[in-house]
Amino acid sequence: MAIAILAPTRDTSVWRDGMLKLDPSLEIRTFPDLGDYHDIECAVVWNHPRGMLREFPSLKVICSMGAGVDHIISDPDIPRHIPITKIVDERLSFSMSNYIVMAVLHHHRRWDKYMRDKTNQTWDQAANPEIDIKVGIMGFGALGQDAGKKLTALGFEVHGLSRTQVGFEGITTYGEDDTDLFLSRINVLVCLLPLVSENVGILNYTLFQKMNKGTYLINVARGGHQVGNDIKRALDEGLLSGAFLDVFEEEPLPKGHWMWQHSDIQISPHNASLTNPTAAIPQIIDNYRRVLQGAKLINQIDREKGY
Amino acid sequence: MAIAILAPTRDTSVWRDGMLKLDPSLEIRTFPDLGDYHDIECAVVWNHPRGMLREFPSLKVICSMGAGVDHIISDPDIPRHIPITKIVDERLSFSMSNYIVMAVLHHHRRWDKYMRDKTNQTWDQAANPEIDIKVGIMGFGALGQDAGKKLTALGFEVHGLSRTQVGFEGITTYGEDDTDLFLSRINVLVCLLPLVSENVGILNYTLFQKMNKGTYLINVARGGHQVGNDIKRALDEGLLSGAFLDVFEEEPLPKGHWMWQHSDIQISPHNASLTNPTAAIPQIIDNYRRVLQGAKLINQIDREKGY
Repeated sequence: MAIAILAPTRDTSVWRDGMLKLDPSLEIRTFPDLGDYHDIECAVVWNHPRGMLREFPSLKVICSMGAGVDHIISDPDIPRHIPITKIVDERLSFSMSNYIVMAVLHHHRRWDKYMRDKTNQTWDQAANPEIDIKVGIMGFGALGQDAGKKLTALGFEVHGLSRTQVGFEGITTYGEDDTDLFLSRINVLVCLLPLVSENVGILNYTLFQKMNKGTYLINVARGGHQVGNDIKRALDEGLLSGAFLDVFEEEPLPKGHWMWQHSDIQISPHNASLTNPTAAIPQIIDNYRRVLQGAKLINQIDREKGY
Repeated sequence: MAIAILAPTRDTSVWRDGMLKLDPSLEIRTFPDLGDYHDIECAVVWNHPRGMLREFPSLKVICSMGAGVDHIISDPDIPRHIPITKIVDERLSFSMSNYIVMAVLHHHRRWDKYMRDKTNQTWDQAANPEIDIKVGIMGFGALGQDAGKKLTALGFEVHGLSRTQVGFEGITTYGEDDTDLFLSRINVLVCLLPLVSENVGILNYTLFQKMNKGTYLINVARGGHQVGNDIKRALDEGLLSGAFLDVFEEEPLPKGHWMWQHSDIQISPHNASLTNPTAAIPQIIDNYRRVLQGAKLINQIDREKGY
């Protein structure tokens, strides 16, 4: 029996080597050299070829190589009874929170202005160097709570929105019915939502109109959450003062795309938080052993909720 | 009797109005309209005219308008027996720490690279987006400890150096005899030292040679701590990978200065942390009343130490 790694867009050798280092007795196969499909009991996936997961008759578990599972559940051909697991990695929180804090401070301390002033050799001590901000985190799960806790420790007022309201010390929280109230109280919006179908395109003009004028947008979730043309319109109309984007509707962001040249947009190539194989591999092997023994899995997602 | 505000480079009206709002019975005089010098019991100062403080025969206390007192003690004509006070302001820590965290994250997340990539419309997902950093804070007093605590909460390893070693949870601390050891363990150096005579020009080539190659420099203390030409040499030789500077030997930084055009230097106009008159004025009035009553002052500095 075997583990199959299905990640056509990734260098899988580090994953394969890491698994074998942990347990040399494992049989690891890497797409497209999968051998007999009857052998595959565990699929380790990142952007797998659509439809392929129903081709393995002995499949017992599907393991995402990262924290997100939208790349799995967006495939309608996944057998309903097979459990799906994700990676929970402290290092993911470390990276994601530090990216968010950087983006928040970049706006708070008006760093776009001071970089422009440097280019123009302008010493402007009269300007107020800080923008008074209130940060709203949309998608207040494990990553959102970690970022919220750290922003609170830096002295910022933080608001957290999630499908069902959660309690969190020092942070005002909201359920999805209170989205408008949440938006009315903030002027920095951080998107950390999972990409389930009802969130596709949620960062659109209708939502931007409900925000305080000049709100700053930080999207570190998925490109599918945002509508690029609506971001442009909101920037033009001053609804948005700027955006710090790690994700895009089309990735890589195409050459010549207007976002590359917009002075109020900051861009990174979907790398705010990268899965660290060293943390992920033991979790995957652990789940593989658990599923063979019929034991309870770790970090299994809820298929109904989608995360 | 009267309070004199001696701050020729500042807009003093907000200070005068703030003091009178707190206590309309106060007699406030603003440089250069000081009336009879015999009336002056309290001098509120920021870059006062050198030598002037010995001209007030009734002077009982000198109050800095900010956290720094180097602008006072660098004047050799200050009567030795007159106490000097500084401002302690939570908002100062908030601003200073957030500036430092921004600078640290800017380096940690290689934001110089990603801004260049944006200009070139380059999507480089293969590069490691994070530099592994260990932050050293030189000058580990109230501000340094606040920044250290916050950087530790973000998951960074922090080292603190002060004249006499202080204990601090979660942070390795050093006394000045262990400066070389401190420098050997870090690759981001934050300068928060007071500008006393033995620290003038401390950020020089000799110190840079003791650091790990490629250390990143953040100076938020005083321009007098750094030797600009040595920073240039260290950047050229790769001893420094870059610098985030809020202070300069000559301020404003002159037009045409090489630092404006250096791609590895970030610049702000000495505004990392600005004194908030709303927090400072009550402390000054409190000390004025205390000195009149012969009570113990708050936030009095140690003249021997210089801070």
